[in-house]
Amino acid sequence: MHPLRFAGLLLAAALAARADEGMWLFNKPPLRQVKEQHGFDITPGWLEHLQKSSVRFGAGGSGSFVSANGLILTNHHVGAGMIEKLSTPERNLVTSGFYAKEAGEELKCPDLELNVLMSIEDVTGRVNAAVGTDLSPEDAAAARRAVIAEIEKESLDATGLRSDVVTLFQGGAYHLYRYQRYTDVRLVFAPDAQAAAFGGDPDNFEFPRYCLDFAFFRAYENGEPAKTPHFLKWKGAGAAEGELVFTSGHPGRTSRSVTLAQLEAIRDDGFPHRLEQIFRNETMLRAWSDRDRENARRAKGSIIGTQNGRKAIQARLNGLLDPELMKVKAEREAELRAAFRAKDEWKDADAAYDRIAGAEEKEREFAMRLRMLEGGEGFGTSLFGIARTLLRAADESAKPDGERLRGFQDSSRVSLELDLFSDEPVYKDLELLRLENSLAFLCAKLGAEDPTVIKILAGKSPIERAAELIDGTGLQDVATRRKLYDGGKAAVAASADPLIELARLIDPEARELRAKAEALDEVIAQAHQEISKVRFALEGDKTYPDATSTLRLSYGVVKGYHDRVEVPATTDFEGLRQRLEAQGGIPPFDLSAEWQARAGDLDPKVPLNFVSTNDITGGNSGSPVVNRQGELVGLIFDTNAPGLVSDFAYTETQGRAVSVHPGGILESLRKIYRAERVLAELGEEGSAK
Amino acid sequence: MHPLRFAGLLLAAALAARADEGMWLFNKPPLRQVKEQHGFDITPGWLEHLQKSSVRFGAGGSGSFVSANGLILTNHHVGAGMIEKLSTPERNLVTSGFYAKEAGEELKCPDLELNVLMSIEDVTGRVNAAVGTDLSPEDAAAARRAVIAEIEKESLDATGLRSDVVTLFQGGAYHLYRYQRYTDVRLVFAPDAQAAAFGGDPDNFEFPRYCLDFAFFRAYENGEPAKTPHFLKWKGAGAAEGELVFTSGHPGRTSRSVTLAQLEAIRDDGFPHRLEQIFRNETMLRAWSDRDRENARRAKGSIIGTQNGRKAIQARLNGLLDPELMKVKAEREAELRAAFRAKDEWKDADAAYDRIAGAEEKEREFAMRLRMLEGGEGFGTSLFGIARTLLRAADESAKPDGERLRGFQDSSRVSLELDLFSDEPVYKDLELLRLENSLAFLCAKLGAEDPTVIKILAGKSPIERAAELIDGTGLQDVATRRKLYDGGKAAVAASADPLIELARLIDPEARELRAKAEALDEVIAQAHQEISKVRFALEGDKTYPDATSTLRLSYGVVKGYHDRVEVPATTDFEGLRQRLEAQGGIPPFDLSAEWQARAGDLDPKVPLNFVSTNDITGGNSGSPVVNRQGELVGLIFDTNAPGLVSDFAYTETQGRAVSVHPGGILESLRKIYRAERVLAELGEEGSAK
Repeated sequence: MHPLRFAGLLLAAALAARADEGMWLFNKPPLRQVKEQHGFDITPGWLEHLQKSSVRFGAGGSGSFVSANGLILTNHHVGAGMIEKLSTPERNLVTSGFYAKEAGEELKCPDLELNVLMSIEDVTGRVNAAVGTDLSPEDAAAARRAVIAEIEKESLDATGLRSDVVTLFQGGAYHLYRYQRYTDVRLVFAPDAQAAAFGGDPDNFEFPRYCLDFAFFRAYENGEPAKTPHFLKWKGAGAAEGELVFTSGHPGRTSRSVTLAQLEAIRDDGFPHRLEQIFRNETMLRAWSDRDRENARRAKGSIIGTQNGRKAIQARLNGLLDPELMKVKAEREAELRAAFRAKDEWKDADAAYDRIAGAEEKEREFAMRLRMLEGGEGFGTSLFGIARTLLRAADESAKPDGERLRGFQDSSRVSLELDLFSDEPVYKDLELLRLENSLAFLCAKLGAEDPTVIKILAGKSPIERAAELIDGTGLQDVATRRKLYDGGKAAVAASADPLIELARLIDPEARELRAKAEALDEVIAQAHQEISKVRFALEGDKTYPDATSTLRLSYGVVKGYHDRVEVPATTDFEGLRQRLEAQGGIPPFDLSAEWQARAGDLDPKVPLNFVSTNDITGGNSGSPVVNRQGELVGLIFDTNAPGLVSDFAYTETQGRAVSVHPGGILESLRKIYRAERVLAELGEEGSAK
Repeated sequence: MHPLRFAGLLLAAALAARADEGMWLFNKPPLRQVKEQHGFDITPGWLEHLQKSSVRFGAGGSGSFVSANGLILTNHHVGAGMIEKLSTPERNLVTSGFYAKEAGEELKCPDLELNVLMSIEDVTGRVNAAVGTDLSPEDAAAARRAVIAEIEKESLDATGLRSDVVTLFQGGAYHLYRYQRYTDVRLVFAPDAQAAAFGGDPDNFEFPRYCLDFAFFRAYENGEPAKTPHFLKWKGAGAAEGELVFTSGHPGRTSRSVTLAQLEAIRDDGFPHRLEQIFRNETMLRAWSDRDRENARRAKGSIIGTQNGRKAIQARLNGLLDPELMKVKAEREAELRAAFRAKDEWKDADAAYDRIAGAEEKEREFAMRLRMLEGGEGFGTSLFGIARTLLRAADESAKPDGERLRGFQDSSRVSLELDLFSDEPVYKDLELLRLENSLAFLCAKLGAEDPTVIKILAGKSPIERAAELIDGTGLQDVATRRKLYDGGKAAVAASADPLIELARLIDPEARELRAKAEALDEVIAQAHQEISKVRFALEGDKTYPDATSTLRLSYGVVKGYHDRVEVPATTDFEGLRQRLEAQGGIPPFDLSAEWQARAGDLDPKVPLNFVSTNDITGGNSGSPVVNRQGELVGLIFDTNAPGLVSDFAYTETQGRAVSVHPGGILESLRKIYRAERVLAELGEEGSAK
């Protein structure tokens, strides 16, 4: 086994020649690495064109301009929330798909903001200058917040562009990002969900794959299609096996700078616990679904969410359980700490690792109680969540704003009330199932003889106690909630609702556990700042920072992998047909009637999906994949399971980014959807009907 | 809440007046209790008739004679193994059902033995006399085995009847049971599995219920239907709500005499662990099934087994988590221990409780390692099981018979080889899934830094390591196994099969863990004997012993219960129709074409299933339910979920025995199956076609 299969994250520059690792800043691109490894020169013009062709989707997600008139390509699943909002009871656009045959038919999204990055400015000096070195941590944080707000306001006033100061390298650098905003965005085309998400959860995070996970939107300005001189030209033939390709998108969050002690805690405690809970919940929800068709309808969304979480965590855990990955992590950490110890003024950064390890160890002592009582895992129902929110809102609103628990500040009031008074249906039978299940989990984890558990069960078995609580509560009624909320502390204190009584019963211990955990989290955050400061001084920005939902460049090659058998890099329509047939067309392996009627017209050899070694994570969905010429040769939509560990460390043995092939998109637009207007705008041939 | 809702098991006589508890011996029937609670006199003649009408099914299960010509009623699921063996590739009798229209068409079962209890003799005195009080535990056990074998042989020689000495009250009493054997048993009638097990796993252990879980066999002697003067007459109208009813059957095993410390270990450690494993396995198997239709076929049996186990354990655990149940258990134990302490020669029995608690505590310290390494939960595949059997068979066969591990004695050779050389298909893809999953479970439970885990993973992630092991092994090939087995220690030691290497790697630690556990089990067994001896001296046989697969009488009443709503005691054909319709007839909520064509003829008001308070457990399946007149008014086929805790303590708040109603059986024989010959033999009207 290759000892350097996993590039270390800390001294990555030294290792980068071995791997296509990195989510690089557009103002610090991997010029040397790409040149050395792939013989390609990234030029400023090439980079600017790609940057200004790239789009960030509000809720998290990426996209790109593909015409001079604001046409945007992204994933169906990135746009799905919007497509759902644009649907009516009569016309479900998620399942039926959508095509605006005329410009006037494009549907305006109710609340979508797109951002296009126009410039980046390094403001680290100004931020650091404003924060005195003799300040207490609290005062330093306040001074930092103040100067950042000042910079952002100045920039907005001067340019009219959205201006965000982004904290990079855990505080090692501060960059000012300026964005063009688009708030008038319209839906142009979406395939039906059957084609977009063919294979559903079973095929999620898997490869080979056969999904047309794409959609087209359009940016408007002043009621007209936006002029977008920077856009990506399509190359329907895509990229060849082994070809260098880039992605430009907005990876959301990675944790590559966590310490070994933190990784071990995630591997040995955090992930195994979450999986245990997921296995339990998924089993119970499915068994309950099997009992009754209406149950199945009610539990469907919860089951899908649980399954997605299971797959993601299992894959990441398997990565952390790879001794090689941990070894490389340990070696990098040891090197860095040795470097820290070489200078007296850096020694505290070395000690910071031990402070983190110590805090992790202390937190683990009460982690299970914290999860169960404060995390609410022992009472996993929405109705308990409502009861606790009511109880705490009453208690917290009496305090000065700055002393309240997170989520109860005045600034959070709107979203808190939105949640609390949501008229989303509450199914008492499903709530009962969840509460029975989570009370049993509570007993298993804290033990039936635990004094708090004894008080919670109140002399009954979990099933009896759950029934008593769910039957007795009135909190499914929004008016009841509103009355208690408006009545404040007196009304909540007088309430005999059994779920409010339960929340009240455990609140002192839950709050105490939370306070202990927050104190330890603060120790960890400060230690990380300490490490980052020194690390940045040592390494500068020769490497890339953890993901921050800002635009990043990654490079890689189109490449299959070995997973007991050779997995080729590309799938095609013939593969889709075979997979559908092998599964008997049973959902989620089914296609629409329209598709079935026209599938014979498809060229079976046209590529559908492909994999590449690009370093991506959640938030990259919808990112364009481009070649050396800056042409669009793919559309990122997923990571395969072995690649999910990239939250913690990039791996290219089996880990892959999964893209829709532009050839597959064009073929489907021609032969299945006959979307002439879109094809014409892309400069492509129309369908030969 | 009623403090005596759960009758204690130990001083049950004092409490019996409050509950229909008890699996009573036919030679020590609950005469007083039934008289006091229900005003009914059990007479010797009534009892003898019921006893000799009752049948034990070989593999575990019960039944009863229902005609003078050896016709036997039992459950479809008790007979299912036989019905399957009688099927051919062309004619699956489990799914299609079976009806012998002529006597000559009855199908002979290949290997079924039925037993009918003819007499019981108390041989406690003779057994105890043969076992000197000054013997070591080992010598005492040998002496006991010898006198029991002597008694059994004498009885067989004298009577020609099967003669078994049964150990009752953990050694408090020894009774000689003599049985008439029937080895020529033929299938007469079985409904299709859709009707027999309507609702499948989702409805398993549930009520209301709609199953025609019955079948008819016939005992033959000398090629002719057996003459069976003791048989049960049918009462198609069944029993009324609140009516006293009895069951006569063969409950397999209960653990009502375990101590509080043992119950707590089961509640807080044993059951939660088993459930955790089940949740994990069930989720993984279902997710894998969803990926592919062939996967689904391969995993189906495993999923059903897992689901059945989950439901059974969850229900039992919920019972143990009822603080009231544990309180009553604790009180009974305290009373008994106080009684023990009152006499000097009994004091050691009081101390025995502490020895049990101490042994449980010690075992818990290494229970997880034991399960993972010796229990094999860390390597949950059949191929690993084969590898270990080969390794150990080679090691053990070199030792004297008496020193070998259980399962490797000469007496076990036949069944060991049967297992080892079974040509049951081994699916490597399913084995891979199982091994990935169980290696991840091993890491979660012992920690990735555990030295044994590190050796097992051999530098790879669980998924990589599992692939290496499953790809590399050749043990799926029966000839390879046979060669290694025949080659003995030298061949196995020379084998480089990766699964054999893995088994070899962990064997020293696994054996050590096993030895430690067996030593503690011996401490517990001896302590229980000590307690039982004194307890029996104190209570005599005023109560009933734990179940031992021998004939027991239980009494109760037909009675619904409250489970958030009132659950009526009886369901009918109208309810079946409604449940099928509500579930859209999707399997397992479907019925055969024949059924659907004829369902209109059914009287919707005829009862189908009912519940009663009788104290039963596994092995009681197929037991007749009779009224005061000894008429058959039901056929036990299940326990509802709240009743499953009866392994540990009887409960009648919600716990119920579930029976098929004779009216429902007759109605289906007339209107659906048109089984004239069976109806005529039961003395019932035929079908009016």
